Amino acid sequence: MVLDQTLLPSQERWVSLRTSDEVVEAIKKLRVRGAPLIGIAAAMGLQVAMSNEWDPSKEEFFTLFHRNVEKISASRPTAVNLQWALNRMEKCAERYAAEAPEQILEHLKTEALAIKQYEETTCDAIGKFGSALIADGMGILTHCNAGALATGHLGTALAPIYMAHQQGKRIKVFADETRPLLQGARLTAYELMNNGIDTTLICDNMAASIMAKGWVQMIFVGCDRVATNGDTANKIGTLGVAILAKHFSIPFYVCGPTSTFDSNCASGEQIPIELRNGEEIRSLWYKEPMTPEGCTSYNPSFDVTPHELITGYITEKGIIKN
Amino acid sequence: MVLDQTLLPSQERWVSLRTSDEVVEAIKKLRVRGAPLIGIAAAMGLQVAMSNEWDPSKEEFFTLFHRNVEKISASRPTAVNLQWALNRMEKCAERYAAEAPEQILEHLKTEALAIKQYEETTCDAIGKFGSALIADGMGILTHCNAGALATGHLGTALAPIYMAHQQGKRIKVFADETRPLLQGARLTAYELMNNGIDTTLICDNMAASIMAKGWVQMIFVGCDRVATNGDTANKIGTLGVAILAKHFSIPFYVCGPTSTFDSNCASGEQIPIELRNGEEIRSLWYKEPMTPEGCTSYNPSFDVTPHELITGYITEKGIIKN
Repeated sequence: MVLDQTLLPSQERWVSLRTSDEVVEAIKKLRVRGAPLIGIAAAMGLQVAMSNEWDPSKEEFFTLFHRNVEKISASRPTAVNLQWALNRMEKCAERYAAEAPEQILEHLKTEALAIKQYEETTCDAIGKFGSALIADGMGILTHCNAGALATGHLGTALAPIYMAHQQGKRIKVFADETRPLLQGARLTAYELMNNGIDTTLICDNMAASIMAKGWVQMIFVGCDRVATNGDTANKIGTLGVAILAKHFSIPFYVCGPTSTFDSNCASGEQIPIELRNGEEIRSLWYKEPMTPEGCTSYNPSFDVTPHELITGYITEKGIIKN
Repeated sequence: MVLDQTLLPSQERWVSLRTSDEVVEAIKKLRVRGAPLIGIAAAMGLQVAMSNEWDPSKEEFFTLFHRNVEKISASRPTAVNLQWALNRMEKCAERYAAEAPEQILEHLKTEALAIKQYEETTCDAIGKFGSALIADGMGILTHCNAGALATGHLGTALAPIYMAHQQGKRIKVFADETRPLLQGARLTAYELMNNGIDTTLICDNMAASIMAKGWVQMIFVGCDRVATNGDTANKIGTLGVAILAKHFSIPFYVCGPTSTFDSNCASGEQIPIELRNGEEIRSLWYKEPMTPEGCTSYNPSFDVTPHELITGYITEKGIIKN
């Protein structure tokens, strides 16, 4: 069961995913989104999809298993957690390949839950390390949603904020609305407000203005893939925020579990960037089309922030400073 | 008659303005927008409003005149062209104060048309100076709408683009959609496409990404007020674009008639910045509210770009380099 995030904040509707096609649809359409949560959904979805197969032979089981892995793996290109979780599931299946399909299924279930457990635990650790950077009275900017809705628990970029709030620090959070899909407006504002945190929504293009006013002392963002040189892919607009942060000398931290670090990727140039349909910009949420018919638009879902612009990476193992 | 810009690009509806209240409403609601066009609308609207008064005595005429000036003057605070145009109208009325109201009205009409004429002529000159900076094959970014819809003729920031296109230069324009009111998506894309110019719409937060790709060689923006030290107020998001331009070493030009230069304003700190209703961010164009109920938002309509970030100012008198 997943909460359909495309309907928030108006409706809280849970959707049941039973087949790999349903898992792929949910990930592609962003009903399930956020790098860690995509990994969890992929692993659990794969296991559920396999458990719905009727008494397959072992050969059939592995054929189906690999077909499902391949399908789910192709759903979105940028977040490496998807591949990371599916790799863990594949290794698990191989490890127990000698056993009967039924037993393998049980092991896969354990593995999927372990992945979920891992992503949840990392949130706490990221929150602990990150909240130590937050002083009473700070203004904190975040972009997109790297909160509870993007992970299994407290979130990555929002975990330090939740923990600082629990510690009684008075903080003021500025949430970029994050066009075109408005994850900041629809999701970040939603979950921060539900948790009683002082939140102000701004348009993405207002970030420079509030930094110039001296309202922002700290920036936390999530990540979809970190290359070995530290270059980081995250939601489109993150690069711009990082450049502004440098201009105004504001610390800029990337928050994510080590499952987001891709040891096979040397630099940001190698990270595949998903291009999505321009209709998301031109008309998706609108009462009527907001652009002239036939208007060309360019809609990359992510950008790459070079490591020079990143103050540090807050992981479950500690903070890596650049 | 003004084209109601809040309805574009879906509907082209012309609205007739007969009273100062109607002029104020049209300016406040952004049916008429763009610094030079606000000045023109204010001057012409003032004259029309006065001509609808029924045979006033001279004392009544001047009382009404000053009341109307005050009302229209208070409609929006940032664009100085509004004050500039009203000042010209006031000086004109004073100059002919000895004549009968009917004659004064005729002089006011001439003055309003001269203001319109001035703003139209400046577009050509700005276009001529600006287009000389554009080389064949360039990618040009613009923010908000400082085109024909914002002035009386070719626009300010878009005038160099129109002229370069007429000169046969192959150019590619990137239009920031410009949240929250989408002047880039609704107006800039609309007028550039209508004129056969290759235009790609992006979300504001994608500008950094296309600059990083090397797609942008030149940036033109309009202005609502330029202080004597060169600090410039323009549509919210301009400051961010200027900081990105500096980071990527891309020339960043402010385009505007000298009527936008405010000799009474020493620096950007003295420019009043209009704050608008947060509903513009939270729900204005949307099928349903896109934020949780009660969500706080901050909605400045402009920001100030310090002069250090500006390569030059393209005016009707030539280019002032910083």
